[in-house]
Amino acid sequence: MLQTRLTELFGIEHPVLNAPMGGGDAPGRLAAAVSEAGGLGLIGGTTIGGVEWLVEQIRIARGLTDRPFGVGFISHLPNAAELMAAALREGVRIVAHSFADPAPFVDDAHAAGAIVMCQVRTVDAARHAADCGVDVVTAQGTEAGGHTGMVSTLPLVPRVVDAVAPVPVVAAGGIADGRGVAAALMLGAEAVWIGTRFLATYECGVSDAYKARVVEATGDDTVLTDVFDVALGMPWPEGVSGRAIRNDFFDRWDGRDDALLEWAADHRAEYRSIDGDAAIAERAVWAGEAASFVTATEAAGDVVRGLVGEAVAVLRDRVPSVLHDRREG
Amino acid sequence: MLQTRLTELFGIEHPVLNAPMGGGDAPGRLAAAVSEAGGLGLIGGTTIGGVEWLVEQIRIARGLTDRPFGVGFISHLPNAAELMAAALREGVRIVAHSFADPAPFVDDAHAAGAIVMCQVRTVDAARHAADCGVDVVTAQGTEAGGHTGMVSTLPLVPRVVDAVAPVPVVAAGGIADGRGVAAALMLGAEAVWIGTRFLATYECGVSDAYKARVVEATGDDTVLTDVFDVALGMPWPEGVSGRAIRNDFFDRWDGRDDALLEWAADHRAEYRSIDGDAAIAERAVWAGEAASFVTATEAAGDVVRGLVGEAVAVLRDRVPSVLHDRREG
Repeated sequence: MLQTRLTELFGIEHPVLNAPMGGGDAPGRLAAAVSEAGGLGLIGGTTIGGVEWLVEQIRIARGLTDRPFGVGFISHLPNAAELMAAALREGVRIVAHSFADPAPFVDDAHAAGAIVMCQVRTVDAARHAADCGVDVVTAQGTEAGGHTGMVSTLPLVPRVVDAVAPVPVVAAGGIADGRGVAAALMLGAEAVWIGTRFLATYECGVSDAYKARVVEATGDDTVLTDVFDVALGMPWPEGVSGRAIRNDFFDRWDGRDDALLEWAADHRAEYRSIDGDAAIAERAVWAGEAASFVTATEAAGDVVRGLVGEAVAVLRDRVPSVLHDRREG
Repeated sequence: MLQTRLTELFGIEHPVLNAPMGGGDAPGRLAAAVSEAGGLGLIGGTTIGGVEWLVEQIRIARGLTDRPFGVGFISHLPNAAELMAAALREGVRIVAHSFADPAPFVDDAHAAGAIVMCQVRTVDAARHAADCGVDVVTAQGTEAGGHTGMVSTLPLVPRVVDAVAPVPVVAAGGIADGRGVAAALMLGAEAVWIGTRFLATYECGVSDAYKARVVEATGDDTVLTDVFDVALGMPWPEGVSGRAIRNDFFDRWDGRDDALLEWAADHRAEYRSIDGDAAIAERAVWAGEAASFVTATEAAGDVVRGLVGEAVAVLRDRVPSVLHDRREG
């Protein structure tokens, strides 16, 4: 229903991608549901399960859909090349890199006939990615959930579009309804990359308590912070922090980096093992400002179809209305 | 060329407003140029010049245009009611309040037959403004220059539109080209409120050195910070910080609030007196992430006409392209 250069390149119906959220949050069943609904599903390839988990998830997705799907990686981690190689061996032909220079990955992916995506947070990084030969650049705004940069989607996307043209650009961050999809297309994006809106889907890998917290939260409840990364001892590149729903742990440690480092030295293993309901108050509940659009648990396919239907309605109804006098004149 | 409920309400041609930037940055000549080009000019009514300066600027604007223009206020400051009364006495019929509960202002403005705008940064504040009877709500994203909130424009605007319907909404923050205008309209905004893009116009009240710095800066160069406010001893409401172009002063004091307070106790008068070229490194150069779109000094009227022409082109060209198969089917 919405055609762009990326629906053509990917061979999909709708220019909607789920974010390949790491840690098992975007498993094969989520990617398959998104692809089966006409979008492009992306498995979040980076988990503690390594290659074995990823291969299993690719096979699960392939069992659920004949349509194209891809795999995304947290590419500054040392196993990114190994994970990508496994995905390519399994026949995946769309790979998405984030948080690292894409240069080391492009040739191997192209040699396997794969499309290479790279997610960026600045115009300079976008330009570098295009120079490296990536096929698609994802521009991620600071309103995104999880790890992201400092510039907002609305001013970032058009600048990235200009900087990398004719390489197609995907908009990420803060997009969660049809109005956001329509707006992203007007900014020059050829598709949208959505994480938060998929967090409360049945197919998402997060816990039920996590889903409930996202449903309950509003966009004002998120914070961009390093406290969870410091506690976990999980380093991220400069200029990247994590957006999560504000919780007890954040309130306890915000602005106290030195004390937190000291605490973490003794309590890291214990902290990492917190799960279930307790994790909502203590671990990061990664989510973007678009959490305010998540008001129920849904099927991922319904989310895709809903987003596209709304976007088409906005474009068909709103545009003739604002261009009114031109059509008559 | 772009018709919305707000072009009708304001009696203007184009749904483009300049932000009523305080401190003399949005004087009568800027508001007049924006209105004369078909947008809605807003004088920034809050300066150290008080009522006298404002009355002079209103008269200057009236000498330059017969079209409607308005005045905006930094309304948590104690002279906001006095300034609004002066504007109403001078025949201004559009007033815009920011940074304060609009309740104390609405009745007096309505009694004078004026349209009341209120700028907000959260959905809760938007709902309250609508409950107070304001006629137009401006939703300002964190990417805006100067004082702003924490949520980005893209996720904020649609939620505000839903929260205050049928009250019309203006989108502010990060909008600086025709793609941004088109995107804002798709988000449900009925107009755009633009500050940064007008900073380097001939009519803007900032210094030539300030304009040059904005032209030179990119969107990655801005920071959201309290250091300048702390140094000046200028309090702002909770949840509001100032976005400025990163400079020496910021680098010296960021993260050192206690030390800065101590320094300011002895050096505040001296700090406040810094001006000219030295101010670029030491005082706040307020600007938004849209600074990356400002690449030359221009006439404000040309900015308005350029924005609208680009937005019309985007909507006319891009929309049929993405809706392609629907039109054929």
